Amino acid sequence: MAGNSFGNVFKLTTFGESHGVAIGGVIDGCPAGISIDFDAIQHEMDRRKPGQSKIVTQRKESDTVEFLSGIFEGVTTGTPIGFIIKNANQKSKDYSHIKDVFRPSHADFTYNEKYGQRDYRGGGRSSARETACRVVAGAIAKQFLSAIEINAYTSAVGDISLDKNYQELDFSKTESNPVRCPDPILAEQMIEKIKAIRKEGDTIGGTVSCVIKNVPVGLGEPVFDRLHAQLGKAMLSINAVKGFEYGSGFEGVKMKGSAHNDVFNNDGSTKTNRSGGIQGGISNGMDIYFNVAFKPVATVMQAQETIDKDGNTVEMHGKGRHDPCVVPRAVPIVEAMAALVIADFMLLNRLSKL
Amino acid sequence: MAGNSFGNVFKLTTFGESHGVAIGGVIDGCPAGISIDFDAIQHEMDRRKPGQSKIVTQRKESDTVEFLSGIFEGVTTGTPIGFIIKNANQKSKDYSHIKDVFRPSHADFTYNEKYGQRDYRGGGRSSARETACRVVAGAIAKQFLSAIEINAYTSAVGDISLDKNYQELDFSKTESNPVRCPDPILAEQMIEKIKAIRKEGDTIGGTVSCVIKNVPVGLGEPVFDRLHAQLGKAMLSINAVKGFEYGSGFEGVKMKGSAHNDVFNNDGSTKTNRSGGIQGGISNGMDIYFNVAFKPVATVMQAQETIDKDGNTVEMHGKGRHDPCVVPRAVPIVEAMAALVIADFMLLNRLSKL
Amino acid sequence: MAGNSFGNVFKLTTFGESHGVAIGGVIDGCPAGISIDFDAIQHEMDRRKPGQSKIVTQRKESDTVEFLSGIFEGVTTGTPIGFIIKNANQKSKDYSHIKDVFRPSHADFTYNEKYGQRDYRGGGRSSARETACRVVAGAIAKQFLSAIEINAYTSAVGDISLDKNYQELDFSKTESNPVRCPDPILAEQMIEKIKAIRKEGDTIGGTVSCVIKNVPVGLGEPVFDRLHAQLGKAMLSINAVKGFEYGSGFEGVKMKGSAHNDVFNNDGSTKTNRSGGIQGGISNGMDIYFNVAFKPVATVMQAQETIDKDGNTVEMHGKGRHDPCVVPRAVPIVEAMAALVIADFMLLNRLSKL
Amino acid sequence: MAGNSFGNVFKLTTFGESHGVAIGGVIDGCPAGISIDFDAIQHEMDRRKPGQSKIVTQRKESDTVEFLSGIFEGVTTGTPIGFIIKNANQKSKDYSHIKDVFRPSHADFTYNEKYGQRDYRGGGRSSARETACRVVAGAIAKQFLSAIEINAYTSAVGDISLDKNYQELDFSKTESNPVRCPDPILAEQMIEKIKAIRKEGDTIGGTVSCVIKNVPVGLGEPVFDRLHAQLGKAMLSINAVKGFEYGSGFEGVKMKGSAHNDVFNNDGSTKTNRSGGIQGGISNGMDIYFNVAFKPVATVMQAQETIDKDGNTVEMHGKGRHDPCVVPRAVPIVEAMAALVIADFMLLNRLSKL
Repeated sequence: MAGNSFGNVFKLTTFGESHGVAIGGVIDGCPAGISIDFDAIQHEMDRRKPGQSKIVTQRKESDTVEFLSGIFEGVTTGTPIGFIIKNANQKSKDYSHIKDVFRPSHADFTYNEKYGQRDYRGGGRSSARETACRVVAGAIAKQFLSAIEINAYTSAVGDISLDKNYQELDFSKTESNPVRCPDPILAEQMIEKIKAIRKEGDTIGGTVSCVIKNVPVGLGEPVFDRLHAQLGKAMLSINAVKGFEYGSGFEGVKMKGSAHNDVFNNDGSTKTNRSGGIQGGISNGMDIYFNVAFKPVATVMQAQETIDKDGNTVEMHGKGRHDPCVVPRAVPIVEAMAALVIADFMLLNRLSKL
Repeated sequence: MAGNSFGNVFKLTTFGESHGVAIGGVIDGCPAGISIDFDAIQHEMDRRKPGQSKIVTQRKESDTVEFLSGIFEGVTTGTPIGFIIKNANQKSKDYSHIKDVFRPSHADFTYNEKYGQRDYRGGGRSSARETACRVVAGAIAKQFLSAIEINAYTSAVGDISLDKNYQELDFSKTESNPVRCPDPILAEQMIEKIKAIRKEGDTIGGTVSCVIKNVPVGLGEPVFDRLHAQLGKAMLSINAVKGFEYGSGFEGVKMKGSAHNDVFNNDGSTKTNRSGGIQGGISNGMDIYFNVAFKPVATVMQAQETIDKDGNTVEMHGKGRHDPCVVPRAVPIVEAMAALVIADFMLLNRLSKL
Repeated sequence: MAGNSFGNVFKLTTFGESHGVAIGGVIDGCPAGISIDFDAIQHEMDRRKPGQSKIVTQRKESDTVEFLSGIFEGVTTGTPIGFIIKNANQKSKDYSHIKDVFRPSHADFTYNEKYGQRDYRGGGRSSARETACRVVAGAIAKQFLSAIEINAYTSAVGDISLDKNYQELDFSKTESNPVRCPDPILAEQMIEKIKAIRKEGDTIGGTVSCVIKNVPVGLGEPVFDRLHAQLGKAMLSINAVKGFEYGSGFEGVKMKGSAHNDVFNNDGSTKTNRSGGIQGGISNGMDIYFNVAFKPVATVMQAQETIDKDGNTVEMHGKGRHDPCVVPRAVPIVEAMAALVIADFMLLNRLSKL
Repeated sequence: MAGNSFGNVFKLTTFGESHGVAIGGVIDGCPAGISIDFDAIQHEMDRRKPGQSKIVTQRKESDTVEFLSGIFEGVTTGTPIGFIIKNANQKSKDYSHIKDVFRPSHADFTYNEKYGQRDYRGGGRSSARETACRVVAGAIAKQFLSAIEINAYTSAVGDISLDKNYQELDFSKTESNPVRCPDPILAEQMIEKIKAIRKEGDTIGGTVSCVIKNVPVGLGEPVFDRLHAQLGKAMLSINAVKGFEYGSGFEGVKMKGSAHNDVFNNDGSTKTNRSGGIQGGISNGMDIYFNVAFKPVATVMQAQETIDKDGNTVEMHGKGRHDPCVVPRAVPIVEAMAALVIADFMLLNRLSKL
């Protein structure tokens, strides 16, 4: 109820604040018998971690995950998988300058009002650091879903937008550049854009797109837990996300039904895929694809007017090392959340028939 | 798990198929002590029901709700509220022509694959008829939330789009026209558009926007059950929805952080509201606003090629009375789902502090 | 949360008050493809219904269940099964004499305090009438579990106790007498006891025992959802239940470990079964057996001193038709709840391995 | 679903095996604003830990809890409280002698069948070591419930039984002897009994009783989540528990209703309390009391015949340091689980009225 668990039967619960001892999580409901590739997990962690390239935050965090339970002799046992990631930047420095200040468009004000207090040393629980735990769980989910391909990529940075169908893209190139755009030419432009934005001490938004291939027919639990509804919730639960669309999305509203409908092939596949691989909330075996909108990061390296907790106007100035654009590091997070959703529905679908 | 419940503590479970005896639901967790205005509930039902105007389906259904429990002497008792809505169109006619045919972009194929069978007499469980139960529950949630205003309206039909800020709109006019657009001039264009589409035997998509006012600070349960994540799921669980965005939404990705940030007033309110009333997943007291994209209805009154359950190509032709555009009737559904989300979080927020 | 749902994936939600329009329920998560035997369901209803014999309440209720959804052409479809049972005794008579009186050892006082009000026309939500819905759901669960035998029976009425091992009993005789004790001689004594108690205008407690055979190995989800923990909760949620024990139970505390341990046969079965078919919270394939204690019914046909809602001492006298002993009618309820637990864990166990 | 979470809104999830790196847990839903007394938590841990007296296992484990999140400057923040307890006895010794052997009346066989494998180095997940996490969470729940007194105590060891009403006991004496029986004379007998049993290399069962005072009226969520049903589940989820009864319990079945009913005082309290503080599943403000039956520990220091995983008969001999009687150390576990149940219902009861 208190919001720190995700999933019905493949269930992740996370805990931890950005400046606490450690963050971590528990995966309950991971089936027994999965051989775990720990390197693959760390690889996903490295895709998300700070300091990995010039266009992301230069904070140094190793983001090493320690598994405490649920895996024995390299194989999942069906018991809960507990893990922690120690916080490297946990130091006793002076936080008095930010203790009582509410940063604009952050969660400082709302946490303070909701809970009557907050860990003021940083983003606390609302920090995107929490998403590292999602990447751990998503990496395990991916190993459960080995036959399914989940490919996320940066599809826009500010107004630089990748206006191609995903079918025209070569996903093997996504990781070949630090912005994680599979189109090398556009990737270059995006990188330059981010560099320019950083120089201004500013930030910029972007979009991440994701394509899921080889999904079996039958995933999703209507009517409320439609596959795309749960995917949407998963994405909207990621820090800084402002929108989600799948299949024909917002553009589809302009179409006529006769043009929008996906005509069947004789094998049950469809000639077009405006449905985005989901019909009636249930996967139909075609590719699932969707877009996720990320707002510009709220922490800018510029002077900003704001208020303190007594309502006084104060000036503040962003400090430290922050991402000028969140999307390159969001790509593995989007994949992780997608993997969690698909894993959950794969298991739930075992229950649908006698 | 099986997907027919929504909400954590103010919880709706629905049941029923379009051509069964009745549809219905159970609201568990509605607080005791709410004086129920039954006329107000029926009013919401009438906003959703078929046959209410020239631009919606001409099917005749009275959509009368019967309450079976949980309300005594006009007041909620804290026990579960059970209700049913009898199906008027339940008749033993001949369905053999559609029994084995999978309609394009419907749920026929996916339900058949997932469950091994389906009620072939109509949309069955995947029919939008199910949303009538949501409107009942939403109407009760609205009465619990009497201080909060939830205003949804049609903001686009096909490419006719209401490009105004919601602040410029007069919501008292939403119900003054059958398309439920608060801009009378644009409403007229939308209505003409829908009429033209219907004449073609075709359908068209649209968007519904929604503004929620007077929301207290503190609603939403991070990190996974962020207020907007749950709102997004709620909207994406409505039939035909393809996208959801809140606050600055997909447009916000183009902005810089310095321009996007909402500067505080001294009372904790903000000068702008690109956050859409939600920061860190928790309401900040500003207006919540969001857009929902609806695809064109899949049932068109034209000949279409499709397949039967043995994979043979067959031609089918839409029959019966269907909506040429779903958005006018979706407006009360969007409000109902929003009310369910807010009611749930209002209750959950009672638990946040000692 | 509000307590009216039971089960994780095979989930029953019930609603309804004893003197409302109807009671009913929704089963969500029943797998598709079960051919439903409606006569078998009604047979279970008849075992629970009032008026079935001389030793139970003489109220007349037909207890006919009407299914509204989820079953099509006699087969479950995987969508929620909604059902109602109309209340026959719903009449507008004068309840003013009980409106403000709290009956001793009933739920009148506690409901009033918890919810601020209550349906005072009878037991309302706390009436055992609610258990009729459990019997409906349990009857469907039994059909899902067709290979598993669930046999409950009356094992004590007051101090008349069946001190035999269940292995010595012939369960085919349970239904041969109205008290549902498989030992015909003891059954006769129990019946005489109940008749004598009724003549006094009094009531008496009893115990129901239950044996479940042919349970596959592997059911139960440790550590909190141990099979016996969920069985215990199921039984303790039945009206008037005060205790639950399984396997060696309360007597087992006197034993030494060396004597209590169940030695294995070479096929994994055990020579003795003090474990009651459950080890570490998981079924081991041996018979599951347990006892459930029912207190004497609180409604006695004698004058009793009590208080009204203002705290004034008043005298009241039980009226109407009540059970002198609840256990004969509790037997099918115990079976129904056991079936719900086993069905839920059967489905959950599909998720335990890759 | 997978069984490692307990509670609805004050929710504990635990993880960890007896011979893994660490055990731990996450408490999600603990309200913000509770000042945490860490010494009081450790005190509860010490009551449960091995090696505390001559009559319990002599294993040495410090059982020191490390909090990782959710508590800032000594006060709960409303975010999830993550914690770990490192395992001291985690060493790489030779387990080959027990690797393939199924110990009688343990969970070895059932875990192996359910999950296809298990951590064979000890009890793994089924070890009572897991209950240390419950004690941590229960200690926090107790601090949330500071006005409520929860007193558990040993009421029987084997056939030595404390046949007094709890009102005659002085709970301040419970901790004055290692067996945790508030009657000093009986405590001495129990201690001698346990010592004798240990000398035999055997084990013995017992019962723990618990009294909860100052419970407000209104806790419990009927119909399935009755207060005593959830208490029963909580207790039955503790290792080695075989039975639960509350109020008049199993003895009450012999009584007549006229004698069993609790007559009201004018203030709503009752003259007697056979209801055990719960009517209709809801607390009535009177003391809650219940008994919990624990079987004798299955690990005996004697030669036993058993089977290996291939079904071969083998002889095994218990090794190491085990409890001859589990009840002295179970007392704080019973209190912890009771505290979790009460805390959960305290929060849920905030939702019952407008």
